[in-house]
Amino acid sequence: MSDAADLTDDLSRAVAGLVGDQAGAWDRAGLLPDDLLRKCGASGVLCAEVPREYGGHGLSSADNGELTARVGSLCSSLRSVMTSQGMAAWSIQRLGTASQRGALLPRLTGGELAAVAFSEPEAGSDLNAITTTIRAEGEHVVVDGRKKWITVGRYADLFVVFGRYGDSAAAVVVPRDTPGVHVEPVADPLGCRAAGHADIEFRSVRVPAGQVLGGPGQSLPMLVTAALTYGRISVAWGCVGILRACLGAAARHTTSRSQFGQKLAEHQLVAGHLADLVVAEQVAAQACAEASRARDEGAPGMFVKSVAAKHIGATHAARAAATTVQLLASAGAEDGTVAARAYRDAKLMEIIEGTNEICQLILADHAVAEWA
Amino acid sequence: MSDAADLTDDLSRAVAGLVGDQAGAWDRAGLLPDDLLRKCGASGVLCAEVPREYGGHGLSSADNGELTARVGSLCSSLRSVMTSQGMAAWSIQRLGTASQRGALLPRLTGGELAAVAFSEPEAGSDLNAITTTIRAEGEHVVVDGRKKWITVGRYADLFVVFGRYGDSAAAVVVPRDTPGVHVEPVADPLGCRAAGHADIEFRSVRVPAGQVLGGPGQSLPMLVTAALTYGRISVAWGCVGILRACLGAAARHTTSRSQFGQKLAEHQLVAGHLADLVVAEQVAAQACAEASRARDEGAPGMFVKSVAAKHIGATHAARAAATTVQLLASAGAEDGTVAARAYRDAKLMEIIEGTNEICQLILADHAVAEWA
Amino acid sequence: MSDAADLTDDLSRAVAGLVGDQAGAWDRAGLLPDDLLRKCGASGVLCAEVPREYGGHGLSSADNGELTARVGSLCSSLRSVMTSQGMAAWSIQRLGTASQRGALLPRLTGGELAAVAFSEPEAGSDLNAITTTIRAEGEHVVVDGRKKWITVGRYADLFVVFGRYGDSAAAVVVPRDTPGVHVEPVADPLGCRAAGHADIEFRSVRVPAGQVLGGPGQSLPMLVTAALTYGRISVAWGCVGILRACLGAAARHTTSRSQFGQKLAEHQLVAGHLADLVVAEQVAAQACAEASRARDEGAPGMFVKSVAAKHIGATHAARAAATTVQLLASAGAEDGTVAARAYRDAKLMEIIEGTNEICQLILADHAVAEWA
Amino acid sequence: MSDAADLTDDLSRAVAGLVGDQAGAWDRAGLLPDDLLRKCGASGVLCAEVPREYGGHGLSSADNGELTARVGSLCSSLRSVMTSQGMAAWSIQRLGTASQRGALLPRLTGGELAAVAFSEPEAGSDLNAITTTIRAEGEHVVVDGRKKWITVGRYADLFVVFGRYGDSAAAVVVPRDTPGVHVEPVADPLGCRAAGHADIEFRSVRVPAGQVLGGPGQSLPMLVTAALTYGRISVAWGCVGILRACLGAAARHTTSRSQFGQKLAEHQLVAGHLADLVVAEQVAAQACAEASRARDEGAPGMFVKSVAAKHIGATHAARAAATTVQLLASAGAEDGTVAARAYRDAKLMEIIEGTNEICQLILADHAVAEWA
Repeated sequence: MSDAADLTDDLSRAVAGLVGDQAGAWDRAGLLPDDLLRKCGASGVLCAEVPREYGGHGLSSADNGELTARVGSLCSSLRSVMTSQGMAAWSIQRLGTASQRGALLPRLTGGELAAVAFSEPEAGSDLNAITTTIRAEGEHVVVDGRKKWITVGRYADLFVVFGRYGDSAAAVVVPRDTPGVHVEPVADPLGCRAAGHADIEFRSVRVPAGQVLGGPGQSLPMLVTAALTYGRISVAWGCVGILRACLGAAARHTTSRSQFGQKLAEHQLVAGHLADLVVAEQVAAQACAEASRARDEGAPGMFVKSVAAKHIGATHAARAAATTVQLLASAGAEDGTVAARAYRDAKLMEIIEGTNEICQLILADHAVAEWA
Repeated sequence: MSDAADLTDDLSRAVAGLVGDQAGAWDRAGLLPDDLLRKCGASGVLCAEVPREYGGHGLSSADNGELTARVGSLCSSLRSVMTSQGMAAWSIQRLGTASQRGALLPRLTGGELAAVAFSEPEAGSDLNAITTTIRAEGEHVVVDGRKKWITVGRYADLFVVFGRYGDSAAAVVVPRDTPGVHVEPVADPLGCRAAGHADIEFRSVRVPAGQVLGGPGQSLPMLVTAALTYGRISVAWGCVGILRACLGAAARHTTSRSQFGQKLAEHQLVAGHLADLVVAEQVAAQACAEASRARDEGAPGMFVKSVAAKHIGATHAARAAATTVQLLASAGAEDGTVAARAYRDAKLMEIIEGTNEICQLILADHAVAEWA
Repeated sequence: MSDAADLTDDLSRAVAGLVGDQAGAWDRAGLLPDDLLRKCGASGVLCAEVPREYGGHGLSSADNGELTARVGSLCSSLRSVMTSQGMAAWSIQRLGTASQRGALLPRLTGGELAAVAFSEPEAGSDLNAITTTIRAEGEHVVVDGRKKWITVGRYADLFVVFGRYGDSAAAVVVPRDTPGVHVEPVADPLGCRAAGHADIEFRSVRVPAGQVLGGPGQSLPMLVTAALTYGRISVAWGCVGILRACLGAAARHTTSRSQFGQKLAEHQLVAGHLADLVVAEQVAAQACAEASRARDEGAPGMFVKSVAAKHIGATHAARAAATTVQLLASAGAEDGTVAARAYRDAKLMEIIEGTNEICQLILADHAVAEWA
Repeated sequence: MSDAADLTDDLSRAVAGLVGDQAGAWDRAGLLPDDLLRKCGASGVLCAEVPREYGGHGLSSADNGELTARVGSLCSSLRSVMTSQGMAAWSIQRLGTASQRGALLPRLTGGELAAVAFSEPEAGSDLNAITTTIRAEGEHVVVDGRKKWITVGRYADLFVVFGRYGDSAAAVVVPRDTPGVHVEPVADPLGCRAAGHADIEFRSVRVPAGQVLGGPGQSLPMLVTAALTYGRISVAWGCVGILRACLGAAARHTTSRSQFGQKLAEHQLVAGHLADLVVAEQVAAQACAEASRARDEGAPGMFVKSVAAKHIGATHAARAAATTVQLLASAGAEDGTVAARAYRDAKLMEIIEGTNEICQLILADHAVAEWA
């Protein structure tokens, strides 16, 4: 545990060194530097739960969560890359055969970037609306479809594409340079501006059938749930990072400025806001710890706890970021600053990996199952 | 641990047996039956953290917390008695001498009821406004003052009274039957109606100087903080109990009634409310667990975590109870029902042991200390 | 206009004189004195919109709204009686024939009390679930059914009963003393405790067919909408009354008590709450004025505006009442006080005459119709 | 009135023609086209309350408010220019002498753009912290100081500068091309990105003493209140515009997309959000109408009502914009779209012309004055 904590410290310090004070500039530019992505990729920090046998760091979900929060407090766009890489790696680890794991995971821990291509123009949370098809053609499969708002789409070397396979489903790994793959960056996302969101079209894209994770003919909900559960926990920890960045910015600003002859932090309405930030960070961090604990123990409640953590993290981060801009006022209203980025980044967290409303419906089902 | 869990189960089952379905009736009557109080007192359930050497159960804060939540889900008034008894016991254990502990704690674990007399008509959270005095007079001390809204005041055999002692402070144990002690029940409290709230006047009340816990000449904030930290954790767990009672009532009602041809729980606006209850329960329970863990470990963050737990528990319980009445509609609007009691009981939780606003100021100080 | 304002002043002063400082006592007793009801009934204040030709005061909806708010700020239970009487009167005026209006309205302006019997054990907002039947039998109609949580049910001399009439619907006036009418008071309502809520059973109750308002064979939604639109505006103004009572109680308390050496109102967290109350009162009053204006002008937006006013009034009153208890702390936590009554009364407002959720669905339909 | 309504229609249609579908592009570019500013300026739409004798349209505050809302629903940056121009015009009209009005107002109605330079790096709402000085020097006055986040600073031809004048205060009109005026655009504002926010430094700027509005030696609070009251009402109407843009975008999106086989708008959680938007728009519009009515009647409550309108408008617009992004999900998360702009623009409204917190303190004072 102490070793893992040390490793987490080392990895997060390394990322902090690479990020420096450039997160605001990357946000304004809408682009992460290639050098950053390559160095982070090669360090294994982007998918640090991958077991050591595949070149990963073998962190627990709890330790990787803490790492994710630290990266998230520096730069939500880079944290989005972590989430994407981790989801792809977990999909391969969970769904792939031994030989697929052996072939693919070292590429991810070695620095190639991967994106999970699931959502479509007409299908966010509604699995039945998925129209992307994967069909067998001799030794190959052919992928046809349009994916939308794919995080890291712009940077990815590999895509894990989810689609229909006849009456069942499949997830297939598609290298970006395969003919028929067309990547169109999202012009100007509201948040996580440098996360490389892109719309991706697959036009009769042929890849060897051996790239289908675990073989074709699987259940779409099962495929998606594996990736999403990882993604939700990762996003939730990212929200904790946003909350910590907000707390730091708010505490520093309100103790360094005065109004009406008193430090801002000594005005009770300001103090009330600071207290709300403290509560938000604690509440979100505990929900994340609980979800990671369930994941590390393979506990049956993992699915619901990942949804709760994502929902709690996102809603608290969005509210807290709005509060932080309020506390910093004009100092928080310049884009690229911590507060302004948090305000835009956190809003996205309420939408991705299951909107607030989808999370509520899942949690309500849980209420009925558990408490009726 | 397993033994403690078993003990917690046994104790809570015993209380459940005594309460049965009478909590609503006690609430309407504004009185707990004497028999209930005596049996609960004698079973040691009311102050289950007292070490075994003093006749207690020696539960950890975490286990006692779980017990408190279970009692709180049955009857907030009885839970208030637990909080009061536990605060008194902890004050004696923490502030008293070895001989005071040996003399007094067995009386509490044996069934005598105790109340902590701190708040005054003009002094809630403002310690400087305390006017009750305790002064030496030979081998005795004399207590003069008025205490207000003392939980369990109506039922208590003993009072732990906090007051000024010259320039410093003291806490003294006063038996209820001492001449000069006048108890006036609060006519009709909004919540925890059967918790025996009373205004208490001490008119030249003489007790042996040996009843002063740890001797006179102590710091008032130190005395009060000991009792309050216990009390806040206990109230917070009580809020978890309210939240669980709400979840149960809401889940049962919305799965047993239909409207517009669908079970209530299947209507999305109802589901949204159920999800809010799930989140509230989880968030409050985790904050309590964190505070109890800090207390059990004697961790330095205990004070702040107890404030956070109380604040999070109370605000979530109050909001959730309002939601539950909403979900039950006319079925929740009959007083004495679980939902209606929760609505009134939870509101009180936002006021006692430090109002929401006092908690916010403490948490804001923490934000500045920790994050600036 | 000036005359109407004078009349409104006179009527509200008369009610204030009758109520005095007894509202808390009536609330605790769960009963309004017969003398009060008779005097208010005979003064015409309870249905002050009834035209003068029928013995009413002929107030506009706006003036009657102001009157309703003033009564509501004194005693929500008495205001509930106004709402009930006004709904019954308006149902008669809107649905009845000329001769029914001539026969029935003078009884209401003369002091007989009326209740509108619509909601049923399994039917709140879902009209299709109504099971009460009204059927022709020679010169009579026969009413069978159970009505639930009927405001003023306990005090009413007359009931306006809504039920199915074959494939259509009817509203019939049933005197309380008709054989087969059974009134069972609700034991202990959460709010408006003295409003005389009762469950009412009609067992083969025979009344002359001439008591069917406008004759049988009408549309249930049309019948109900007429009554509900009046009721929603009335309840909304009642919420304004609650908000004013809260503002008064909060402003007086926080300017007369000090803590930490400053008047409570000078603490910013207290000031923030006071500001919220000011906003809530203004917002609710303006929504009511808008709905009354639409009603007075017979404007097509009346239905939606009455729903908006009720929804805005109820949600703001409920939140503001919780805030007011918070501001008064222990002084607000004694039941029967203005704050504690407001806390319980306002919650009921979020349920009656269309729950918050039903109001939201109606307002969402409006959003689609108006803005898509 | 009908003429004024027609004029309001004509003016808003003209602006709509000029804006077309370019607001998103201007927002992304952070710049309004010069041509747009000149045409809007010359049409008098930017300060439409200026009396006709000075070349203005002489609109009432209510009609200008409606016009402001319409412009605000198209482009918050252009609406900010209206607010700025109107504040400057009103400052001249209210504070200036007859000859100043005659000389300056026609320049504003003729198309020159004006900005009000009040806030400073260390002084937002705290007037005592103002450090800009204006001092007499023969026939001139000399202005020294730094102003911060001045809306329209980048585009303005004239500045109305507020500063200390010895022990009193003065407001002076400074042409942008006066030597010593340095304008530094804010790099990247969070919202109203094209409103031309700039930091402005005045280094020994000499202008004729006749440019001091009404002469020097005035009360700073009086000077500022005149401008701010106008500005708050204008910003409030701008928030109504944002709310209408949100309602339109949300209603259109949720009726044109389906999920799980139903139009989005038919899902109750979506409907709940739509209802919140309807309520927000109504509540904000009514608060604005009330403030404008008070302004048009010169009623004593104008100051408080302008604060309430600004506060209600801003808080509801900010919340509603977050809801709208949520409803549009990925379609709302592309920057430059109506929803994304509203999300950033509305947040700024909670900060400018008095933060939420300053508004709360003013409203709390009102609560005490009116209700205690």
